[in-house]
Amino acid sequence: MTKKTVLAYSGGLDTSILIPWLKENHGVEVHCLAGDVGQGEEELEGLEAKALATGAASCRVVDLKQAFLTETVWPTLRALAVYEGRYLLGTSVARPLLARAQVDYAREIGASSVAHGCTGKGNDQVRFELAYMALAPELEIIAPWRTWEIKSREDAIDYAAKHGIPIRQTKAKIYSRDANLWHISHEGGPLEDPACAPPDDVWMITKDPREAPDEPEVVTVAFEGAVPVSVGGRRMAPVELVETLNRVAGEHGVGRVDIVENRLVGMKSRGLYETPGGTILYEALRSLRALTMERDTLQLCERLAPEYAKLVYNGTWFHPLRTSLDAFFTEATKFVTGEVRVRLFKGQATSIAATSPHSLYSENLATFAEGEGYSQADSKGFVRLFGLPGTVAARIQGGGRA
Amino acid sequence: MTKKTVLAYSGGLDTSILIPWLKENHGVEVHCLAGDVGQGEEELEGLEAKALATGAASCRVVDLKQAFLTETVWPTLRALAVYEGRYLLGTSVARPLLARAQVDYAREIGASSVAHGCTGKGNDQVRFELAYMALAPELEIIAPWRTWEIKSREDAIDYAAKHGIPIRQTKAKIYSRDANLWHISHEGGPLEDPACAPPDDVWMITKDPREAPDEPEVVTVAFEGAVPVSVGGRRMAPVELVETLNRVAGEHGVGRVDIVENRLVGMKSRGLYETPGGTILYEALRSLRALTMERDTLQLCERLAPEYAKLVYNGTWFHPLRTSLDAFFTEATKFVTGEVRVRLFKGQATSIAATSPHSLYSENLATFAEGEGYSQADSKGFVRLFGLPGTVAARIQGGGRA
Amino acid sequence: MTKKTVLAYSGGLDTSILIPWLKENHGVEVHCLAGDVGQGEEELEGLEAKALATGAASCRVVDLKQAFLTETVWPTLRALAVYEGRYLLGTSVARPLLARAQVDYAREIGASSVAHGCTGKGNDQVRFELAYMALAPELEIIAPWRTWEIKSREDAIDYAAKHGIPIRQTKAKIYSRDANLWHISHEGGPLEDPACAPPDDVWMITKDPREAPDEPEVVTVAFEGAVPVSVGGRRMAPVELVETLNRVAGEHGVGRVDIVENRLVGMKSRGLYETPGGTILYEALRSLRALTMERDTLQLCERLAPEYAKLVYNGTWFHPLRTSLDAFFTEATKFVTGEVRVRLFKGQATSIAATSPHSLYSENLATFAEGEGYSQADSKGFVRLFGLPGTVAARIQGGGRA
Amino acid sequence: MTKKTVLAYSGGLDTSILIPWLKENHGVEVHCLAGDVGQGEEELEGLEAKALATGAASCRVVDLKQAFLTETVWPTLRALAVYEGRYLLGTSVARPLLARAQVDYAREIGASSVAHGCTGKGNDQVRFELAYMALAPELEIIAPWRTWEIKSREDAIDYAAKHGIPIRQTKAKIYSRDANLWHISHEGGPLEDPACAPPDDVWMITKDPREAPDEPEVVTVAFEGAVPVSVGGRRMAPVELVETLNRVAGEHGVGRVDIVENRLVGMKSRGLYETPGGTILYEALRSLRALTMERDTLQLCERLAPEYAKLVYNGTWFHPLRTSLDAFFTEATKFVTGEVRVRLFKGQATSIAATSPHSLYSENLATFAEGEGYSQADSKGFVRLFGLPGTVAARIQGGGRA
Repeated sequence: MTKKTVLAYSGGLDTSILIPWLKENHGVEVHCLAGDVGQGEEELEGLEAKALATGAASCRVVDLKQAFLTETVWPTLRALAVYEGRYLLGTSVARPLLARAQVDYAREIGASSVAHGCTGKGNDQVRFELAYMALAPELEIIAPWRTWEIKSREDAIDYAAKHGIPIRQTKAKIYSRDANLWHISHEGGPLEDPACAPPDDVWMITKDPREAPDEPEVVTVAFEGAVPVSVGGRRMAPVELVETLNRVAGEHGVGRVDIVENRLVGMKSRGLYETPGGTILYEALRSLRALTMERDTLQLCERLAPEYAKLVYNGTWFHPLRTSLDAFFTEATKFVTGEVRVRLFKGQATSIAATSPHSLYSENLATFAEGEGYSQADSKGFVRLFGLPGTVAARIQGGGRA
Repeated sequence: MTKKTVLAYSGGLDTSILIPWLKENHGVEVHCLAGDVGQGEEELEGLEAKALATGAASCRVVDLKQAFLTETVWPTLRALAVYEGRYLLGTSVARPLLARAQVDYAREIGASSVAHGCTGKGNDQVRFELAYMALAPELEIIAPWRTWEIKSREDAIDYAAKHGIPIRQTKAKIYSRDANLWHISHEGGPLEDPACAPPDDVWMITKDPREAPDEPEVVTVAFEGAVPVSVGGRRMAPVELVETLNRVAGEHGVGRVDIVENRLVGMKSRGLYETPGGTILYEALRSLRALTMERDTLQLCERLAPEYAKLVYNGTWFHPLRTSLDAFFTEATKFVTGEVRVRLFKGQATSIAATSPHSLYSENLATFAEGEGYSQADSKGFVRLFGLPGTVAARIQGGGRA
Repeated sequence: MTKKTVLAYSGGLDTSILIPWLKENHGVEVHCLAGDVGQGEEELEGLEAKALATGAASCRVVDLKQAFLTETVWPTLRALAVYEGRYLLGTSVARPLLARAQVDYAREIGASSVAHGCTGKGNDQVRFELAYMALAPELEIIAPWRTWEIKSREDAIDYAAKHGIPIRQTKAKIYSRDANLWHISHEGGPLEDPACAPPDDVWMITKDPREAPDEPEVVTVAFEGAVPVSVGGRRMAPVELVETLNRVAGEHGVGRVDIVENRLVGMKSRGLYETPGGTILYEALRSLRALTMERDTLQLCERLAPEYAKLVYNGTWFHPLRTSLDAFFTEATKFVTGEVRVRLFKGQATSIAATSPHSLYSENLATFAEGEGYSQADSKGFVRLFGLPGTVAARIQGGGRA
Repeated sequence: MTKKTVLAYSGGLDTSILIPWLKENHGVEVHCLAGDVGQGEEELEGLEAKALATGAASCRVVDLKQAFLTETVWPTLRALAVYEGRYLLGTSVARPLLARAQVDYAREIGASSVAHGCTGKGNDQVRFELAYMALAPELEIIAPWRTWEIKSREDAIDYAAKHGIPIRQTKAKIYSRDANLWHISHEGGPLEDPACAPPDDVWMITKDPREAPDEPEVVTVAFEGAVPVSVGGRRMAPVELVETLNRVAGEHGVGRVDIVENRLVGMKSRGLYETPGGTILYEALRSLRALTMERDTLQLCERLAPEYAKLVYNGTWFHPLRTSLDAFFTEATKFVTGEVRVRLFKGQATSIAATSPHSLYSENLATFAEGEGYSQADSKGFVRLFGLPGTVAARIQGGGRA
């Protein structure tokens, strides 16, 4: 019986040419799996027909949009995980779900391998393969772009032409992009020079702040236990919620990021990201956490956020550390419930007001004082003992005066 | 001989009434010390005359502007220290220098105590006193606002009237403010309700983004070893550099922050801050660090930034941990030299391009690859071994699939 | 109606004299609460009679032994929490339970305050009071030793004599001690000079290693999810388990610690601790964790252990950070199940062998390799990419050669 | 002209067979470099003659003993770096120096490559190669054991026989060992089963604790700025100092470690280590740090120690993070000067007394109190404010009572 492989398929040139190539070089039936994580109608339309026309034995499109948000985006948001201070991890969070759907399909049809179209220079190969290995170590992994003779877009087009693969647009794309419900990324072309400011034409889902409305707009977001549940007072399912916020944030030019980041595979790269709705949610959640979380817990969360960002970025989603950190953040944010008003204006989202039934601020500390004791006199003793170790050190060893 | 005290004096109501009070209640000569950290002409003008008129035995005004920037602001910036994710520490960084100047004056004139006008509910009492204790443990500390009978602005005005102290403006100030070259803070009044958006009239040194210019402006900042050295290609002394950036950033409404923060003395408080030039510098430095710092070093810096922010916020500047962390950050950022272009527009500062003679990106990794080896094939082995611990765990103990 | 207070009562001189003092100075009925955390029969015997004879209105002795182990000791052990590298936190873990029992009694009888006999120089006042404040903020806290005129043991004996309080032994105790099922601590006297080696007579529950058996003894301990469940193959309830290990470890002189530590209230102090059974459990658990935990999770546990130790030491047990960290450690250690053999000999406990059904080592990696891939060739690519950021930095900025 | 390679040569079977192999397969002149890091006379004697007899073009033996101690061991000790809680990093610290000497020789003679005899399963390949790449990226790296057809000791012996290489002992060694001044490691054979207790015959430089002297011995060690400078009151050069401590510690059976550790290349391995003198130094330094370091600095050192251990273990010695952390630890430990008495007995080293001219304990805190203020009354305010965030959280959100 012919062996089967399940290919992570997007319909684009890079994965389309893998269909004939895998058949020729691995002698396998190629079954395509495409995950709908909100990359847009245009990319998904006619996908099955296209795959079959290109020689695939089957093509399944799975709707992952809600799972994507609730299973990977919400936990990443809850941790306020930001990679290297700026990147909201929009591509990273989608990979584990795509890989899992691929593995599920492989098992269902009895495939012996999985394949992807990532190159050997990026992070995505790592994210896909770590997920495959964690979820289905028995499956062989095929990653042709890492090793084959096709080295450029031109090579790929030639290969497609030879194998009769229809290509929508043949002129070179300037940028390499990845889109989903949460964000879109842009790399390559002129962006590869960090001395070069991002050209205006690169951005796709956020308006140029210069052309955004001249009046600010205020949007109200509510959370329950650090999970977003409503916008403007209306409860929404996750997908609708993010789509709604994307629309309004995009209109105001909110959510653009331009970063030189350190890839897991070792080199620095320059990426532009648009995460419009996500930017509102991070901003709002930060304010709500400040209002509702106890100091030591908040500050440890802050120190653990880079750890969480790193594991998401590195693609170790199905490794044990992630579930342990999730246990921590779930417990730590269980009272992060309430409403935040965020003002959108010319590229910026700014939290301006927040309320919570669990606010640790709402307790009137003046009243509190009378009740059981914020006495200003207490602070004298506090200062002396809090500072005692440093005071003794300064006296005996000399203070850090210089 | 009459004992002497040195009072941290601002010319305002809160410290003015301390002059007669200290004389009456502690039987001391009161010598005033005011530090010029860039709070503005208005506050400094006629300060000496005013102090003497109020009964001070002397008043010295010390210019601390450059020391303030080079000794505490630059190191804090170098660490990209941000308290609880948002506050650029503008008040915190000024206190150690003021306390040190006060201690120096006390020693010079043979005073036996130092006094300040901070209340028992804030952070500043801690910052002043920890510095006093570290630098001059022999000096007694007098902090009347913590314990005396004067509880309100009205009480204070009455006390001033009884003691013939001239008061510039008698109507209640709505906000409590602290200004210096680096920032201005606003607290109190309607801000005490975090559900209340900041009123437009609170902001002082940044234009309302709605009224900022409709065209972006790009400013170029250069650093040497993470220390800012020039603006727009022109080398500037620290004070001029920050004043220049404050002007241009303020014009574009850049640098506003609105935060609920955890005070060291235990309660949450709501503060608004304007740090116009500083916001440009943080943004620019973050980009330059990304370009010039090796990954592991950058990521440890990121995890240590909250530690540095905490020590600055808590006022343990003259304790040993600060010098140890400074040694770390100095070494870690020694190649953070180069130029960054920052676009200012309607409240936002965005780094758009960066260059450095020490860029770890500029090395063309494609070329690099040929030279000695970024081979895409390497990544296969990398992925397998990088993921091995998690792969084994997932197989034996079940992956974090759920 | 006379107000009531609940006193944390031990039967010793320090808390006995509080009974008349509280009645005289606060005009309250004094109700005593003693928790049995395994401090020993001698201390508990006749406690109720003694309290009543001294003037207490009531005295309740609560058996907290099992709760002590399962609620605070096991979680602290699971985190391998060690304060400042050496102290196993034996006193710290008992305080939250004692305070909670006291609060429960106070509520039951309608008391309006709680009282304790800790001085103002130690950690225990903090641990008791933080627990009171977290669990019952409405209760007033009375801490006479911090402020009253009784400053020495002699003063206390005089006071006792005047109030007809029977004292078991009147000659000065050299050491200040605290005992429970988990440990005993020793402070004071000659120990206050860290240049002075611990005298032989200070130790109480561990044999002098010189007099321990000349033959090693091997004890087998089993854990389930990082919780100790059996010794020598026999399942035991927590109390029996710890008593058993204490006996055998004590016989071999295992569990002594001598440390200069940093108290929360700011000064350094020198303490000696004996934690015989606990030392075996920490040693065994460390080995079992190494066998069963995935690398990244293990290494983050290692970095979080000092955080957990600090919160236990500082007494913030009933604050939110503890439950959040417990969620993390519970999840992280859920597969830490298995058996460890520990050799006891002349003061040392050494893990010599471990087995686990969830071992991540037991998987034969040679076999593993064949199956799906530990190929030694993989490591070439791994090394190159793992080291790439540092390699580039070394080339461009110069390596850390010096 | 024939190309040259520099081989890291030990004289053992594994590196000897590389000489003919490299000549045959790479067509290079093979120049051997052996570093004396204290592995012992037996291994070094006649090394040059042996290399030449095996076909090497040259063989240089470099004395690295002192550099080894001062450049890598002392900094690692200063950080109290311990890998995964137990391993004192004795092999890891030697690799950077050996690699550097090899690179230096390669440059001196104009070699175009470097070669080593490490397999593809261990950490040492990584440590060697990261150093090569950082110090001399232009050199090709040849690592035959990773890829060649020789898979076992038997294969190697055959190969040696065919190429006329003299082999000292032909019968299989049970254990794989690595020795230097600081330690010796043992792996392989029966140790590969963590359920198997270490056999008595594995240990080499420490006496069986059962046969160690029945009387304890006390040794006094002195440090200056965390660097060991004398033993028993006699100043010694580093090599003599470590040899002296090794002798006395070994006599008392001190310094054995048995660990399951996580290798950088992903699998767990079981290693036994003997670090006799090092164990004394770690124990002593920990006590001296406790006496002389301010609390916050000490506690951050504790949290950074695993980071330092990780970089040493992983072999990123010549990467920037190491110099940055060295700057931190150098500054943090500059007052760690003084003397510690350590008792050696039956396998255990126990610090029993310490003194320092910079002791932060020696200050009599009782006296201190009178002077300026340890007033026990201060602690009331301290406790209240220290606990305030948790108190408020407990009241509003419920304490972590459960």
